[in-house]
Amino acid sequence: MGREAMKTGMLLEAEPLRAAAFAPFGYVIETAGHRSRSINQGTCERFDALAPVDIVPDGGRPMISIFRAMPRPLPHMVRILERHPLSTQAFYPLDGHPFLIVVAYDSGHAVPGQIRAFRAAGNQGVSYHRNTWHHALLAIGAVSQFLVVDRDGPGANCDQHELDTTVLVTTTA
Amino acid sequence: MGREAMKTGMLLEAEPLRAAAFAPFGYVIETAGHRSRSINQGTCERFDALAPVDIVPDGGRPMISIFRAMPRPLPHMVRILERHPLSTQAFYPLDGHPFLIVVAYDSGHAVPGQIRAFRAAGNQGVSYHRNTWHHALLAIGAVSQFLVVDRDGPGANCDQHELDTTVLVTTTA
Repeated sequence: MGREAMKTGMLLEAEPLRAAAFAPFGYVIETAGHRSRSINQGTCERFDALAPVDIVPDGGRPMISIFRAMPRPLPHMVRILERHPLSTQAFYPLDGHPFLIVVAYDSGHAVPGQIRAFRAAGNQGVSYHRNTWHHALLAIGAVSQFLVVDRDGPGANCDQHELDTTVLVTTTA
Repeated sequence: MGREAMKTGMLLEAEPLRAAAFAPFGYVIETAGHRSRSINQGTCERFDALAPVDIVPDGGRPMISIFRAMPRPLPHMVRILERHPLSTQAFYPLDGHPFLIVVAYDSGHAVPGQIRAFRAAGNQGVSYHRNTWHHALLAIGAVSQFLVVDRDGPGANCDQHELDTTVLVTTTA
């Protein structure tokens, strides 16, 4: 990462992932702050409906996948954001590693608006709202696997936008 | 567990969970044995569509939940099996602990047929086919959390059946 880019761009320190701050972009999938109900003769606590799965049918249906992501060096330069017009997309870490999340507000002009960065703990997943600008998976520190729930089927379900500003994301936690 | 029950019932040793053996009952959610494709500029392997999510709409939709299950003492006596006529139900372990799975073939008479038991490794999830008889979550050894994908919404989505035979399940692995 060149010093020039650092000087002319914006360096974002990822903020801790909290449901309230993340609400414009999606859901945080976690037990903290949620009520459970007891099932299976009292042997299990069920934290229900932490995230809905919002899929536009049009021949598509939800599917469960696993992503195995290589860790990114930090700071990470944000070049491209994407959004999925036909589905939510949920990620839950399977190895207990923290990861970074970069999202952008809707500018109202089919391009990303203001960018925010979050640091998810290893026991926090996220589900992006349909059509929410976000960065591709950003593992940090170690190869990290994620359970993913999104959409299988026809149709163009990935818009991409290349940023014309320089945004660097990092975490010191 | 009384010696009488052991003498008059059936003791099942859980077999290792393998996709082929489990196919009549559902999908094994795992990377092993599946091809991946490279995404995100080569930083991520995507193991796609390991399990479909089969939800009968009727006002319902898929949801993502977390279950926190207490470990069961072994051998475990199987008393009740259940099935979900309106949805698949997928479980993936979040703490890397093995767990047990008890399922039954469809007898064709709205009651469970022959029972089989499997031992899932800590990096294997399962998705039960819609309407497949299975036991409630069976954590072993430690409190275990699972990401769960099933159905939110109206309608009767849980049939239960109390067994009239004695089946004990255990694992020595």
